[in-house]
Amino acid sequence: MSQTAAPDYSYAGERVERVARAATDVRFDDRGLIPAVVQQVGSGEVLMVAWMNEESLRLTFETGTSWFWSRSRQELWNKGATSGNMQKVIRVLVDCDADTLVVEVDSPGPACHTGHRSCFFRELVADESETPSAGV
Amino acid sequence: MSQTAAPDYSYAGERVERVARAATDVRFDDRGLIPAVVQQVGSGEVLMVAWMNEESLRLTFETGTSWFWSRSRQELWNKGATSGNMQKVIRVLVDCDADTLVVEVDSPGPACHTGHRSCFFRELVADESETPSAGV
Repeated sequence: MSQTAAPDYSYAGERVERVARAATDVRFDDRGLIPAVVQQVGSGEVLMVAWMNEESLRLTFETGTSWFWSRSRQELWNKGATSGNMQKVIRVLVDCDADTLVVEVDSPGPACHTGHRSCFFRELVADESETPSAGV
Repeated sequence: MSQTAAPDYSYAGERVERVARAATDVRFDDRGLIPAVVQQVGSGEVLMVAWMNEESLRLTFETGTSWFWSRSRQELWNKGATSGNMQKVIRVLVDCDADTLVVEVDSPGPACHTGHRSCFFRELVADESETPSAGV
């Protein structure tokens, strides 16, 4: 993965195909939503996962900052517009069956509403009975 | 989940809290599913995003390999059991509101059914009208 300046046409060590939004059948679910994994460019940290609808995807392209649909508030939100921790969108990747996005961003500040850098600051540890005999 | 060689208790540059599965209210949606972002440990590549139900999460802990719920086939699947491209699970992270997982894995082979290393091998490019005047 590369930096802000030089465009990178690879991901996970392979060349990426560039597909036009209009020519791609992005599959929103029955609520009109698609999950978007927000990843810091360069480090690869997964910062958060949120949902986009058609309009938030359009706004993301239009503004170059990340827009999502809040399921709890039922409204569009421009990530960081209140906190100041905006995410500069570097590129948007779409998966093989076009029902999930990876949004590569440059996020200088924390991404989580708790103040953590990433929303994934907790490790889920197996309960006793679930632990494999030979440690994973 | 336990470690391979060197246990890492940080993610995105911060110390992770370890929370027991039984003590954590993992929020499965109304279909009983939770999205799981599968990430290659070390490189940070997002390989795929799939869905887990309660049973697949339990099997993931129990076997140390990744299990998901296939929405199309309506059955559990052990990733790579057929292709041989199994994913060794290093740890499972849960986000702030416990409705999304990051599954850190070691996946030596391709993760996508197309043969690509990652399912995210396509970049979605804005249509003309959506491009910001100053390129993203």
